[in-house]
Amino acid sequence: MRSAGLIDLQVNGFAGIDFNSGTITTAELDHALEAMLATGVTICLPTIITAHPHELEQRFIALDKAVSESRLGRLMCPGYHLEGPFLNPAEGYHGCHPPEAMTAAGIGLVERLQGLISRPILLVTLAPEVEGALALVAALKRSGRIIAIGHSAVDFDLAEAAAQAGATLSTHLGNGMPQQAHKLNNAIFAQLAEDRLYASFIADGIHIQPKALKALIRAKGMERAILVTDAISAAASQPGRYPFAGMSVELGADGAVRQPGGVGLAGSALSLDQGVRNLVAWGLATPENAIALASGHPLALLEPSLKAFGITLDLGEVDWSDALAVRSVRLGEVERRFAA
Amino acid sequence: MRSAGLIDLQVNGFAGIDFNSGTITTAELDHALEAMLATGVTICLPTIITAHPHELEQRFIALDKAVSESRLGRLMCPGYHLEGPFLNPAEGYHGCHPPEAMTAAGIGLVERLQGLISRPILLVTLAPEVEGALALVAALKRSGRIIAIGHSAVDFDLAEAAAQAGATLSTHLGNGMPQQAHKLNNAIFAQLAEDRLYASFIADGIHIQPKALKALIRAKGMERAILVTDAISAAASQPGRYPFAGMSVELGADGAVRQPGGVGLAGSALSLDQGVRNLVAWGLATPENAIALASGHPLALLEPSLKAFGITLDLGEVDWSDALAVRSVRLGEVERRFAA
Repeated sequence: MRSAGLIDLQVNGFAGIDFNSGTITTAELDHALEAMLATGVTICLPTIITAHPHELEQRFIALDKAVSESRLGRLMCPGYHLEGPFLNPAEGYHGCHPPEAMTAAGIGLVERLQGLISRPILLVTLAPEVEGALALVAALKRSGRIIAIGHSAVDFDLAEAAAQAGATLSTHLGNGMPQQAHKLNNAIFAQLAEDRLYASFIADGIHIQPKALKALIRAKGMERAILVTDAISAAASQPGRYPFAGMSVELGADGAVRQPGGVGLAGSALSLDQGVRNLVAWGLATPENAIALASGHPLALLEPSLKAFGITLDLGEVDWSDALAVRSVRLGEVERRFAA
Repeated sequence: MRSAGLIDLQVNGFAGIDFNSGTITTAELDHALEAMLATGVTICLPTIITAHPHELEQRFIALDKAVSESRLGRLMCPGYHLEGPFLNPAEGYHGCHPPEAMTAAGIGLVERLQGLISRPILLVTLAPEVEGALALVAALKRSGRIIAIGHSAVDFDLAEAAAQAGATLSTHLGNGMPQQAHKLNNAIFAQLAEDRLYASFIADGIHIQPKALKALIRAKGMERAILVTDAISAAASQPGRYPFAGMSVELGADGAVRQPGGVGLAGSALSLDQGVRNLVAWGLATPENAIALASGHPLALLEPSLKAFGITLDLGEVDWSDALAVRSVRLGEVERRFAA
């Protein structure tokens, strides 16, 4: 079966390479993107997580330089995803992001970071309850960017207000919040009920157990569901220690990435083609639908932003085996064939 | 608009009359059923909640005598709903049911109660985690009865096991459980994900807030969603104190029924036509769909049981105004017209 290439809206690193290192080189980025290409991903938004402003500057500058100088980066990375620092710093919400680097929301920081780099920050994940966040949603919307809700204790009214202001996505819905919650009046149901929001999910079977994911996708509506990896450098790698945004995190034999000694997850080791295969194996989608969650749906979400920034995406083409293994990928003049 | 009459699978009392009194008379039952008829309900399962065995005996005998001697009872009550006593007695799960009367599950009590009455106990709500419950599900299934999960801490595996054994309904899903829960791995998601289960919902805007209900119905699948009232004697009545299964409960000005001084709900004061109107007003369903949730869907759920007991239901007909007020009801030779 052939399909358009996959789009990963949230990827912090891959194949041993940390996009948040602040020192990423062109060769390193090419290595990571080459490995992503083998998973059927032709378009991705490298994701920079919460950090202090000078760290964000350094990380974006290094990342953007690598993308600009890399042959694959130019093809595969139309822009970036800024996840933070305007997130909820409370226990359970901040996840592995450093809460001390979280701040009130303002367009100033985004503009300053944007001024340092050549490609647009296309997507910003924020928590609408942070001071100034709704005004920032409106400002980001005006600037043509996509706004996502994440690491947030948003309730029904605030989810509606954020969507009204221009938010169109829930980032890794079901994660980035405490384990315990009100059974119904919580951030998950608040975002499920708001139809102006797409929702991204990490379909590794670890972040959300498969049967819960089935109910979540149906509640959101299959047509508004998106798969992301939230991968870090541990993806496409062996169990062990990996760097992630200044931390040292551990990929366990169970496939989960955690801060050593911690129970909370710190990104994933998922590849997007595996997420597609998981959805099909769990009976949650047909192969065609599962691929759409990782290609057509994120493309539809990005559409207004691509238009605003004058970006035309070439998604290329993926050839899938019957078992949904990636057999070959074509992107522009780049062609790769893989062992079955 | 015309439709078939509505079916209420869970009604503990109505219009000042408590079906759980143990002393209900034919005249009292007729009064309650006449009031239900005015809400478009032509078929209901009077519901007996958790009590000690001798109380259950007394309540079923009195109720069954009233139904058998009542003209409307013969038309409107094909059988009964036994909600308990095989429920989870833990805080937050038992609701207003007396936890001290909850027991291990066994077919013996059901058969003893059935032996005392002329109409079948068509529906039994139980908690699969109670000792003996899965065996009881299988036995009830063999006897042709419908089995519902309710007041239960069921997890994904146990919900699947209960459905495998023959359970086909979740009773008032989202209620009958503690306010706080794991965000995803909880009894709600466990039952949402099991497609062999229909789910009933109390659409009064109090038991479940409307936007959460929207997500729940979509997650369950509109075609598997059912409206019930869980009404008590306070329904179609003024605020004040009302009897319910030996308790004195209070209908507040907010429309909620509570044990005095308590925060938990003790049934509802909802009528089923109001539930239908609420779904439409909240934008969760078209009028036709909302009516189906209170008529065609419960009928489809009951179908195997009706067949097993050789029951042919006449649902009669309801004429609805454009505002979904019940203008007239016809059931057999009974005809009623109501002021607009």
